Amino acid sequence: MKESLLLTPGPTNVPAGVLGKTALPMIHHRTKEFQAVLERVNANLQKVFLTRHPVMTFASSGTGAMEASVTNLLSRNDQVLSFSAGKWGERYRDIARVYGMDVKVYAKASGEAFSAAEVGKALDDHPRAKAALITLCETSTGVRHPIQEIAAVTSKSGAMLFVDAISGLLCDPLRMDEWGVDVVVCGSQKGFMLPPGLSFVAVNERAQRAIAGSDLPKYYFNFSETIKMIKKNDTPFTPAVGLIRGLDEALGMILAEGVENVWRRHAEVARWVRREMSSLGLALLATAPSDALTAVRMPEGIVSGDAIKVMRDSHGVVMADGQGELKGKIIRFAHMGAACTMDDARRGFGAFCDAMSKAGFKPPSLKPVKE
Amino acid sequence: MKESLLLTPGPTNVPAGVLGKTALPMIHHRTKEFQAVLERVNANLQKVFLTRHPVMTFASSGTGAMEASVTNLLSRNDQVLSFSAGKWGERYRDIARVYGMDVKVYAKASGEAFSAAEVGKALDDHPRAKAALITLCETSTGVRHPIQEIAAVTSKSGAMLFVDAISGLLCDPLRMDEWGVDVVVCGSQKGFMLPPGLSFVAVNERAQRAIAGSDLPKYYFNFSETIKMIKKNDTPFTPAVGLIRGLDEALGMILAEGVENVWRRHAEVARWVRREMSSLGLALLATAPSDALTAVRMPEGIVSGDAIKVMRDSHGVVMADGQGELKGKIIRFAHMGAACTMDDARRGFGAFCDAMSKAGFKPPSLKPVKE
Repeated sequence: MKESLLLTPGPTNVPAGVLGKTALPMIHHRTKEFQAVLERVNANLQKVFLTRHPVMTFASSGTGAMEASVTNLLSRNDQVLSFSAGKWGERYRDIARVYGMDVKVYAKASGEAFSAAEVGKALDDHPRAKAALITLCETSTGVRHPIQEIAAVTSKSGAMLFVDAISGLLCDPLRMDEWGVDVVVCGSQKGFMLPPGLSFVAVNERAQRAIAGSDLPKYYFNFSETIKMIKKNDTPFTPAVGLIRGLDEALGMILAEGVENVWRRHAEVARWVRREMSSLGLALLATAPSDALTAVRMPEGIVSGDAIKVMRDSHGVVMADGQGELKGKIIRFAHMGAACTMDDARRGFGAFCDAMSKAGFKPPSLKPVKE
Repeated sequence: MKESLLLTPGPTNVPAGVLGKTALPMIHHRTKEFQAVLERVNANLQKVFLTRHPVMTFASSGTGAMEASVTNLLSRNDQVLSFSAGKWGERYRDIARVYGMDVKVYAKASGEAFSAAEVGKALDDHPRAKAALITLCETSTGVRHPIQEIAAVTSKSGAMLFVDAISGLLCDPLRMDEWGVDVVVCGSQKGFMLPPGLSFVAVNERAQRAIAGSDLPKYYFNFSETIKMIKKNDTPFTPAVGLIRGLDEALGMILAEGVENVWRRHAEVARWVRREMSSLGLALLATAPSDALTAVRMPEGIVSGDAIKVMRDSHGVVMADGQGELKGKIIRFAHMGAACTMDDARRGFGAFCDAMSKAGFKPPSLKPVKE
């Protein structure tokens, strides 16, 4: 069988060249050699986040970085607006609640997205709100939020916009500075083409000013210490040396391709996957689909787990089931990072068709699928 | 030149077989294949910590795990006793302060260690104390604390014993359950022979009972969620898949050698290094030296940085300078994990002698050094 193809919404396949760099013989982190890596990585992260502001790297999962954005920029009893279109929106909501904030929750049914007008209305209703929390790509449903339009609203308000772009960055367009996004959170194992273990947070001027006002305790995830160390090509604590050398390689690959070309590749593959699914008569869950993954509704009588098992066992293709209430009802076909090529998508779609057919699915018509 | 030899107190050299496992093609973390890795890793971590209690793994530096032990087991306004013999003891103190605790600080001069009697006296003076915070090996000075004797005292008191064993575990003996240590914190880049990026916390019954009583907010570092997931061979958040597969390999190597044999190897190498240093007439900083590293005082007129540079540039041997006030005054010669063999120690000592001689040091006598 061919090498396994990870079409899950993270972790995704990691290029061999990146893996190789993560496994170079160890070096100490307080050396000129590693400082040069940090200097390049920090500069290149800014190019990928499209920001001139600091992009911090932490050893943690993406959730750690989400929590860090809350504990460093907000205070107990702050009013925050949570815009949740699924499991990941709920996570931001839950973190803010754990820290004792006054969280006003806006929620969407699975597959639906918030509009900028809805965010604007919520801000009008809550003029004291300090932050609006939202996801770029909500991986539980495959929905993409219109961050550019939303940022146009939040940047004129008193609320900072926190974007969980953990799975979205480099798959869906995001222009942090140009759009006026205050905080962007990301993880390593999606668009960045890395193993899991690193997370990132970028903070603009408004967010950096908020650091001093936060009354929440923090130690490991400390933005002011981390930003200070970035300026010295250093880190407050021992960094994940291997993963950061892999990041250096991955950033080089991404910038050689060009961030806009990376977005275009994701858009093209995503469009193809959506069209093929439609040609089978299958419905997408997302009304406003992300280019990071496509969530397809299972037709009556088919349980997604059965098809997923066939894909995995007979084709070496790994896709994800729905989470929570969506378990059994959708298949999530990711096209992220290094596993976002037309070859990968075709292999994935071929496996999908075979598995669905074995699960008893008959497409509504037999007309050949055109590309 | 030979491959660089990292004799710094972390990161240390990582065996090629472990590096190879960290760089295997990526797999998804919610699969039978990875669950089998987690099951084995969790069982083997217990064998290394010498505990039947859960050992949690986090993607973070060791500092994150130190903070986690405080936020999960203690509460705001709790009285805690900080026993600090250097920079790492100060870190535990600082974390407890950040979380609003009533920290009673006991501090030692550089190179000195606390005795169990001193800890007992402090506990007698503070019968309300909820915790005693101490390091196993204080890497800033090379001191080892007598944890067995200290635990004999704390286990009869109302205070839990938190041991920062980040650099000490697997280098200095620690028998968590037998000695009655409540909390053991560790990192991946020392005795575990792994790249930095993982941390560990083990908690005994008393510590587990304390989880429910803690009023501090936490989300990413959440012991009760993590322990629940360990029982299902799962993790609350996406784990650092590559590093954990490396951990699996490293644990296999450690257990094949045997934990007591690993301690013995460290003790033998450390004894040899201490004896050679003494034979040069050099003084050790630590009155109670750890087997993880040897901190040697520079004689009058020699600045450690000069010798460190010669070792690095002419011999590919990397040792560490002192930190803070000790900068320039000591050299820290680590013998940890995979870089703890007699060959490594001899290469390190050879480089040290050459560098010291170039820095103008003349040993007090010319009598040949016996082994």
